[in-house]
Amino acid sequence: MTIRYPNGKVFQASSNSPSKKTGPTLYGNRGMSLEDDLHDSNMYYLHQGIAVVHKKPTPIQIVDVHYPKRSAAVIKEAYFKQASTTDFNGVYKGRYIDFEAKETKNKTSFPLQNFHEHQIQHMRQVVKQNGICFVILMFSLFNEVYLLPADKLFHYWDRKESGERKSITKQEVERDGYLIPQGYQPRIDYIKIIDTYY
Amino acid sequence: MTIRYPNGKVFQASSNSPSKKTGPTLYGNRGMSLEDDLHDSNMYYLHQGIAVVHKKPTPIQIVDVHYPKRSAAVIKEAYFKQASTTDFNGVYKGRYIDFEAKETKNKTSFPLQNFHEHQIQHMRQVVKQNGICFVILMFSLFNEVYLLPADKLFHYWDRKESGERKSITKQEVERDGYLIPQGYQPRIDYIKIIDTYY
Repeated sequence: MTIRYPNGKVFQASSNSPSKKTGPTLYGNRGMSLEDDLHDSNMYYLHQGIAVVHKKPTPIQIVDVHYPKRSAAVIKEAYFKQASTTDFNGVYKGRYIDFEAKETKNKTSFPLQNFHEHQIQHMRQVVKQNGICFVILMFSLFNEVYLLPADKLFHYWDRKESGERKSITKQEVERDGYLIPQGYQPRIDYIKIIDTYY
Repeated sequence: MTIRYPNGKVFQASSNSPSKKTGPTLYGNRGMSLEDDLHDSNMYYLHQGIAVVHKKPTPIQIVDVHYPKRSAAVIKEAYFKQASTTDFNGVYKGRYIDFEAKETKNKTSFPLQNFHEHQIQHMRQVVKQNGICFVILMFSLFNEVYLLPADKLFHYWDRKESGERKSITKQEVERDGYLIPQGYQPRIDYIKIIDTYY
């Protein structure tokens, strides 16, 4: 049946109308990124007194700043800089925690180009200082999130550097990593894995 | 005696001529800030494998970014945000280290307005997680740099909050803090104090 507005225009249910929603809400449809979920998890850990972990600000090279009278300084020209460390760090029971989080839409492997040489170098320094260091890898099409300890990542990085494959297969991530439980609070409970593994 | 160039112009020794320098080079004349010295110290610790400590990037609120063809993204409008944590963190022998560094030109006291409520709150959370947390206070006119443990800072912060004095007297810093040795490498050897105190 065609429904018309008083002006004669045909009414059409919008594609985001609630009646159109079928089946369970999938991760990709929630409009939440891995980063948002990690932020929420970190805020949960913080407010529960479990751990203090923050994402570092994006490094920016400032070129030009204006100082208008009676108002805040305005940055007029600036550029994104490549991070020399990882994105997240903090403290859990006195121990230093350091990690990077990345997602892929690949089904069978995780591309190593998601990481930079400096980041790997930073992670090696952290491991030498006995910090808890890892990467969080998300296979978004499966809604699976893994914690892969840094020493395992180094193995695959070195394999790439030696001219072999440029990714970690999903089977390798499943074998060497730990599937992180997901829930409402915290969304991505990586501290649970740290308790078990470290 | 007046010296003249061949063209008749009078020669005058420039004010930054080496012959004008008298006495020992003072800290304030080196053109180095406390932040520069801490950066150098952190790089020394990093390259010697002693500790991994970095300054966090300045947090910035980006409003407008242009994406020119065939060149890097340009930030055209952005503002400085107030930091919600401290400036420096990292790892030393597996332990989490977290600190803020400030300098004053005052001779008799260190004003507490150098710190923000969020930073104090962050430091309290770090202390609860058993992290190594402190502030580095520089009295620049004396070229003295102190490490003051966070629990001591909280005492003076709470005194301010209760309506009493808004600063820590220099005597109090001398009594509750630790004078940090300064040298060529590292410039500000705060790790030495950590070894003793923590």
